[in-house]
Amino acid sequence: MIGRKDVEAAWSLIRPHVRRTPVIELPGGSLGHRQPMALKLESLQVSGTFKGRGAFHKLLASTVPPAGVIAASGGNHGVAVAYAARALGHKAEIFVPTISSPAKVARLKSYGAVVHQVGAVYAEARAASDKRAAETGALVVQAYEDPVVFAGAGSVALEFAEQATFDTLLVAVGGGGLIAGCAAAIGQGIRIVAVETEGTPTLHEALKAGHPVDVKISGIAADALGASRIGTPNFEVAQNLVAESVLVTDEAVRKAQRALWEELHVVAEPSGAAGVAALMTGAYRRAAGERVATLICGANTELASIA
Amino acid sequence: MIGRKDVEAAWSLIRPHVRRTPVIELPGGSLGHRQPMALKLESLQVSGTFKGRGAFHKLLASTVPPAGVIAASGGNHGVAVAYAARALGHKAEIFVPTISSPAKVARLKSYGAVVHQVGAVYAEARAASDKRAAETGALVVQAYEDPVVFAGAGSVALEFAEQATFDTLLVAVGGGGLIAGCAAAIGQGIRIVAVETEGTPTLHEALKAGHPVDVKISGIAADALGASRIGTPNFEVAQNLVAESVLVTDEAVRKAQRALWEELHVVAEPSGAAGVAALMTGAYRRAAGERVATLICGANTELASIA
Repeated sequence: MIGRKDVEAAWSLIRPHVRRTPVIELPGGSLGHRQPMALKLESLQVSGTFKGRGAFHKLLASTVPPAGVIAASGGNHGVAVAYAARALGHKAEIFVPTISSPAKVARLKSYGAVVHQVGAVYAEARAASDKRAAETGALVVQAYEDPVVFAGAGSVALEFAEQATFDTLLVAVGGGGLIAGCAAAIGQGIRIVAVETEGTPTLHEALKAGHPVDVKISGIAADALGASRIGTPNFEVAQNLVAESVLVTDEAVRKAQRALWEELHVVAEPSGAAGVAALMTGAYRRAAGERVATLICGANTELASIA
Repeated sequence: MIGRKDVEAAWSLIRPHVRRTPVIELPGGSLGHRQPMALKLESLQVSGTFKGRGAFHKLLASTVPPAGVIAASGGNHGVAVAYAARALGHKAEIFVPTISSPAKVARLKSYGAVVHQVGAVYAEARAASDKRAAETGALVVQAYEDPVVFAGAGSVALEFAEQATFDTLLVAVGGGGLIAGCAAAIGQGIRIVAVETEGTPTLHEALKAGHPVDVKISGIAADALGASRIGTPNFEVAQNLVAESVLVTDEAVRKAQRALWEELHVVAEPSGAAGVAALMTGAYRRAAGERVATLICGANTELASIA
């Protein structure tokens, strides 16, 4: 199981290639929540989400063959791999399910990647990408279940802890890469709270079962949080270091997206607004005086979806 | 003429009511510009623009009569006055020209202000507001030509200088409130560069003439930068402390807005993107090693206008 030192090492490797994303501390009464909160705008990261950190780490820590890299992704991971590959001079092929948003597909192509839209869900896109990688010899960059990838993602938590003081960090969970990285990074001293939508409860169900289980995926966050099963190494970290797991409705996520835009002029995709939704609705109930923080972890969305 | 101490005093008065807005430092190669730049996301300020700072300062530094406050505004100043009035428990009436965007008018109403849409240009809305204030005895909060207002606006420059190190600050100019405040705050040590669109060159023309002159207003930034004449006290500060004045085209502003969204997931209204436009186009040419910074000073726009 990786720990803080692995995340620190990843951070020092990727630091020249990623952005130190800004933080805003809001007083009580903001975003429909009585208490103060700190938000880290990781949506301003290169490639538009925290996934840029993991992709750069994988490519920098690996020997990339002439065939380049291959990824399967609901969208954001693919965008991050395409971005990092272009930045480091490698070829990239990205496999996405057909539900991926046109904005994400267009962005992939703008980074020079070859895009394959295959299958209704992530698992099908992934099977196609594995087959293709076996043919070409390209490096497979997994979306979340590779500790090298999530060690890179965890650097966002180290950075956040330098920028603000908090007791609790709320983290949106899809396949579990971000939360495993954050928990490995700071979970020894900070309460890590998992937030998922009711339609994408991969960690919630795994924690109940005591092991990763398949979950039927649906709803507003399906394209970004829609892994049907939590990664195995991710679950190991989460089971040890995640304090609590909460669920929010799609409607709560929509309200959080609108509040972020109307009160703060911050654009977030559904997964990026999940932590705020948990605070706005009280799905996460803090103790008196508990200082909470959350990540706006992505904004790869079409503006019209928020307007 | 106000100076740094006035801005410091304003900042300490308004600090409990406004946000410390975040800063992001971008490496060379970002936003179509070869060199690094620091951006302050003042678009995340309460009320959506830097105008919140000036409005709070005016209301806190004045005795507000029972009739409340009145403002005339292309939009953002009115939004800020309405926001501050509601926060401090005062009535507000806001006069806006008919070209103001529906998003801005809706926002005014959401803050509980009585909104009057009068006249094709700012000057007509202002005349109507003066008439109304004479009738009711309400406190007039001028948009830019009141040193109490622009001392508040200048706090953004003091805050920015705490957050990042730069030699030059590019500032968008409408009536001159923001630039006068910034120049008063830090213009003794930092190069202040004025940026206007070709359709709203109020400071540019005043500097050429040696005094404020009337300018015909047009183009993409008309609703936010569309004062037809620079304020007199603003011009006095600018003439002394603004190092350079540059113009950008509407098309350059549109490109800057798109780049801010596509590369950074930051939404800016046209005036908010003017500084970035001056860097992207080379309208402002920096010296070797010169560290530049600019304010994303507003985002009160409809998302569809950027998508």
